[in-house]
Amino acid sequence: MEIRQWVIERTRQAKHASRPLSLLSTEVKNKALEAMANAIKANEATIVEANRKDLDAATQLSRAMVDRLTLTPKRIADMQTGLHDVAALPDPIGSNGGMWKRPNGLKIGRVRVPIGVIGIIYESRPNVTADTVGLCLKSGNAVVLRGGSEAIHSNTAIANILTKAAQDVGIPEGAIIFLENPDRQAVTEMLSLTEYIDLIIPRGGEGLMQAVTSQSKIPVIKHDKGVCHIYVDRDADIQMAQEVCFNAKVQRPGTCNAMEALLVHEHVAPTFLPSIGKKLHEAGIKIRGCPKTVSLIPNATRAIDNDWGREFLDLILAVKIVADMDAAMEHIVNYGSSHTESIITKNKATAQRFLKEVDASAVMVNASTRFNDGFQFGLGAEMGISTTRIHARGPMGLEELTCQKFIVLGNGQVRE
Amino acid sequence: MEIRQWVIERTRQAKHASRPLSLLSTEVKNKALEAMANAIKANEATIVEANRKDLDAATQLSRAMVDRLTLTPKRIADMQTGLHDVAALPDPIGSNGGMWKRPNGLKIGRVRVPIGVIGIIYESRPNVTADTVGLCLKSGNAVVLRGGSEAIHSNTAIANILTKAAQDVGIPEGAIIFLENPDRQAVTEMLSLTEYIDLIIPRGGEGLMQAVTSQSKIPVIKHDKGVCHIYVDRDADIQMAQEVCFNAKVQRPGTCNAMEALLVHEHVAPTFLPSIGKKLHEAGIKIRGCPKTVSLIPNATRAIDNDWGREFLDLILAVKIVADMDAAMEHIVNYGSSHTESIITKNKATAQRFLKEVDASAVMVNASTRFNDGFQFGLGAEMGISTTRIHARGPMGLEELTCQKFIVLGNGQVRE
Repeated sequence: MEIRQWVIERTRQAKHASRPLSLLSTEVKNKALEAMANAIKANEATIVEANRKDLDAATQLSRAMVDRLTLTPKRIADMQTGLHDVAALPDPIGSNGGMWKRPNGLKIGRVRVPIGVIGIIYESRPNVTADTVGLCLKSGNAVVLRGGSEAIHSNTAIANILTKAAQDVGIPEGAIIFLENPDRQAVTEMLSLTEYIDLIIPRGGEGLMQAVTSQSKIPVIKHDKGVCHIYVDRDADIQMAQEVCFNAKVQRPGTCNAMEALLVHEHVAPTFLPSIGKKLHEAGIKIRGCPKTVSLIPNATRAIDNDWGREFLDLILAVKIVADMDAAMEHIVNYGSSHTESIITKNKATAQRFLKEVDASAVMVNASTRFNDGFQFGLGAEMGISTTRIHARGPMGLEELTCQKFIVLGNGQVRE
Repeated sequence: MEIRQWVIERTRQAKHASRPLSLLSTEVKNKALEAMANAIKANEATIVEANRKDLDAATQLSRAMVDRLTLTPKRIADMQTGLHDVAALPDPIGSNGGMWKRPNGLKIGRVRVPIGVIGIIYESRPNVTADTVGLCLKSGNAVVLRGGSEAIHSNTAIANILTKAAQDVGIPEGAIIFLENPDRQAVTEMLSLTEYIDLIIPRGGEGLMQAVTSQSKIPVIKHDKGVCHIYVDRDADIQMAQEVCFNAKVQRPGTCNAMEALLVHEHVAPTFLPSIGKKLHEAGIKIRGCPKTVSLIPNATRAIDNDWGREFLDLILAVKIVADMDAAMEHIVNYGSSHTESIITKNKATAQRFLKEVDASAVMVNASTRFNDGFQFGLGAEMGISTTRIHARGPMGLEELTCQKFIVLGNGQVRE
């Protein structure tokens, strides 16, 4: 069959399922999530075997890509836990606060409803398949998944296991559609189907982000790069600054909420930089600094223009000494990606100004940027961190997978 | 200057203004809104003269278009009132509920912030210029306006008056950008500037909607057509059904929330349809019905396939007799535009099912569809009725012109 026609038919199935799916009770949805978790466990051998095929074919991939592709027993167990956790979260569908009454007697309220059909386009990590299917199902959305070709066997196996488990407990056919055709044209076609898909969520690197946003006719919520800064203020607790900055850079440098650039007030630079520089060097971090930084940290090299505003996702940190907080905020405006920004200061007025004037999905005081995360915020499982300014910004959880409808109760009101 | 370059430079000014604008106090914003209202009043003669030029040139336009283009003294007064009303509304920027505390001591909260730069693309009605500038300013957003070429003199005059008034009280230059170049290429260029514009809101007919959504690289919130139904149930209060249906069709047929199709339960059709048919006929409404309808209403003609799901915006109504509510809901799924749907029934269980199962920006019981409106819902002034499923759905007011950021207060927390 022609690819376009094939994508249309598969996607239309999702659209068709979306209405019965939106009306399912919490009980049925949770039963399906539990069944899916159990099916992952029962079929672990099948998943490992499929993953083996992908790994055998992964001769051209970088070590980091192979790592993301590998399904260890821990990661398979995490998929199960993730599904159980989503089952335990409150159902986001339904009432959204009370109703209000108008002078003419009309009662008005808001109700949360599913978005409809959500398209997920992702790379490498096959556990994303289970995570996103769980979130979409709980929020009453049908999902059309398109994973990377490098993970095709793993993703297909997982999607088949989840689909069967879900259907066995009454989830409508079409609720989970996995596009197993590795042809890139399938993505292009998918992104044109405004009639069948309501929202596209791309998860992956910059190339994927750009390909999706430039092609899509469907609304996109991007989970784009994080160029996160910490500004160490003149009134910083230096010991705290050491610990927070070390954590933000070293704890997991490959994530979008890791610190990529450190801005230091010139008054504290001479006391702060040599010691944090030593600690970071010992942890294997390469520092690329402004000229003054290089004079204070023995192992630092000079940063080039391109290092400011860059998402290294690696053991590299850009460091700049600034004259004051205004200079730090100006740098963040020019080079930040509005993902996560943090200040270390004991001065409350300074902290308040930073919180007010800096614009990002999360702005922090005296905390590691690594906390910008749905679980860490106490919001539960998430799709990722949205860097889009509309609909969802920051951790995108179950509530952000819904939209609203107004309901209006009258007794014959007409408009004058 | 080349058009692309010109659009980039104008739009960049808006982007540049958006940061200082986002930090303005409520007091300054309200002062600007009042000054703008007063300036409209003081410069009424200039506006009327500019509007005269547009009307003189409007030899090719339909009567309805000329009507929308005309600025009567009442409409100019309404622009002033609108700006005063927006000044009186609460500022949507700032705190959004309290903060919550995590086990590690982190305090987390949400704050509403402006979206940034909003692009408005609209047709004919020059009063949209004042209405949208007021809403964008109050919500701290810069605005890039692109009106229809048929209203170019009126829009330019209004935009200049508003801009001068705003700047005189301290609103940053660039906060209000009106693209006065009538070349269509200016729109195409505008829709490509993802770096400078955060959201596009098109306001106008189907042609404009399609042109914008197919071209835009920027997120779009559509205010699309309303194919609104009323379903008169077997348990309807027939007197109420008469009044509500008459109002929904006749009170202002050219609006998106007017009723376009009436669905009637077969049990009540023989009592209900002849009388409502007579009333509607007397009001000049032409009825296009299914065969059974035609046999019950003397002046009705047979509907063609194309009449179902059509937004007439005119003195025309499609009428269909259905076997039960399931058939009515099926018709709404197939032909509705998810804008506004209403049921007339005394049966509470039936009403609850309709409210739950019908999907639209507003679902109503025993009320005229004409109530789907920001003012009527008590939400204040609005941009229009969003038919998009993400970010805003239904009346799009000040809150929907904001996004959020998370704020996080720590005392040195690091992630394990």
